Amino acid sequence: MKIAVLGTGMVGQIIAAKLADIGHSVVMGTRDPAKTLSRKEEGTPNAAHITDWMKSHAAIPVVRYAEAAQHGEIVILAVNGAGALSTLTLAGAQHLAGKTVMDITNPLDFSKGMPPSLFVCNTDSLGEELQKAFPEARIVKTLNTVRADLMVDPAKLTGEAITMFVCGNDAGAKTAVTSYLKTWFGWKDVIDLGDITSARGTEMLLPIWLRIWGVLQSADFAFRIVR
Amino acid sequence: MKIAVLGTGMVGQIIAAKLADIGHSVVMGTRDPAKTLSRKEEGTPNAAHITDWMKSHAAIPVVRYAEAAQHGEIVILAVNGAGALSTLTLAGAQHLAGKTVMDITNPLDFSKGMPPSLFVCNTDSLGEELQKAFPEARIVKTLNTVRADLMVDPAKLTGEAITMFVCGNDAGAKTAVTSYLKTWFGWKDVIDLGDITSARGTEMLLPIWLRIWGVLQSADFAFRIVR
Repeated sequence: MKIAVLGTGMVGQIIAAKLADIGHSVVMGTRDPAKTLSRKEEGTPNAAHITDWMKSHAAIPVVRYAEAAQHGEIVILAVNGAGALSTLTLAGAQHLAGKTVMDITNPLDFSKGMPPSLFVCNTDSLGEELQKAFPEARIVKTLNTVRADLMVDPAKLTGEAITMFVCGNDAGAKTAVTSYLKTWFGWKDVIDLGDITSARGTEMLLPIWLRIWGVLQSADFAFRIVR
Repeated sequence: MKIAVLGTGMVGQIIAAKLADIGHSVVMGTRDPAKTLSRKEEGTPNAAHITDWMKSHAAIPVVRYAEAAQHGEIVILAVNGAGALSTLTLAGAQHLAGKTVMDITNPLDFSKGMPPSLFVCNTDSLGEELQKAFPEARIVKTLNTVRADLMVDPAKLTGEAITMFVCGNDAGAKTAVTSYLKTWFGWKDVIDLGDITSARGTEMLLPIWLRIWGVLQSADFAFRIVR
């Protein structure tokens, strides 16, 4: 399948690598490839500098957002929440129309200190804002409630089934994404929470996620809905 | 132990009954006992009308908030979020000073339709508002993330350990509450999330709790933190 992964940070790297590994035609999108590749900062413990990363993933092109989105039959949005709207704008509404867009972003606001708060919540969500701005895209909010390595390997923790959610207005897109989560990554417990307004609920998990992370001093945890 | 349960609804009834069952000296508080007892509405599937409930729990006095709080060595706040501040005000700061106050409330706002939103969240919480208003009370936010019957019987679901959180500024009060959760109710997995600002995280679980409730058509579920 032709897949666009928008974003070259930790989440983008881990998802793109996994999808390429299992045989998909993955293209990574970034704002300005020349600038991305010339960035001077080092990689982090979780994400390689993109130039280093590309050496070990030479088969995955890194191109502009629009070019990536044009390539993808499905588009995976894996950027910081603050950049989500501008990323889809640069990707181009015409390259998103009719396509399933997996939205992994969280509206984290780091401007008021740590832990971050949310720049939209409660009566709105980033998922809704994206759906409103791109009405022809089939936005499905998902995977935003676990760390990147668990997104693509949910059995990694203990083998105990952890729970993932899908939220969106398009039933077909949610069914497709649920199937992708299961077949690509091995998710076993996926709950369809409802329309895109239910993204408020999954984005509002972030504050407790961040607190638990702080207490455990580890992101090796995830929510399971016991029922 | 002398325990005040403020609130005569479903949560208050279930907690008061459980604590009386295991031998504590429980007093229930309400705004105006005469008015509570003369209320005409029927009970709900989950909560009996208080007069009916009192017939089968005759040993538990129903008195004014202040009288109940005065009785309690520990105070359990089990009212609607919208009434939390006025309930503690009526209970009286002098009857709360130095005492552990288990705050089970959620800031649910039903004025904007269903599902409810939160009337405070993100950069503040109801737990914080209560602690600010009653600086000498030792507020511990807990139990607000599960239905009342699971609060007092967390093994009811599947036997699989579900997770409870405690949030508060007073380490001793949190240690005490953690011990109460375990010995009174059988909680096995309790995470101390930090100071009272971490109540933002547990209160912000409500939106997804409400969505899951809607999807499952049942409140027989709870969060487990797999790690």
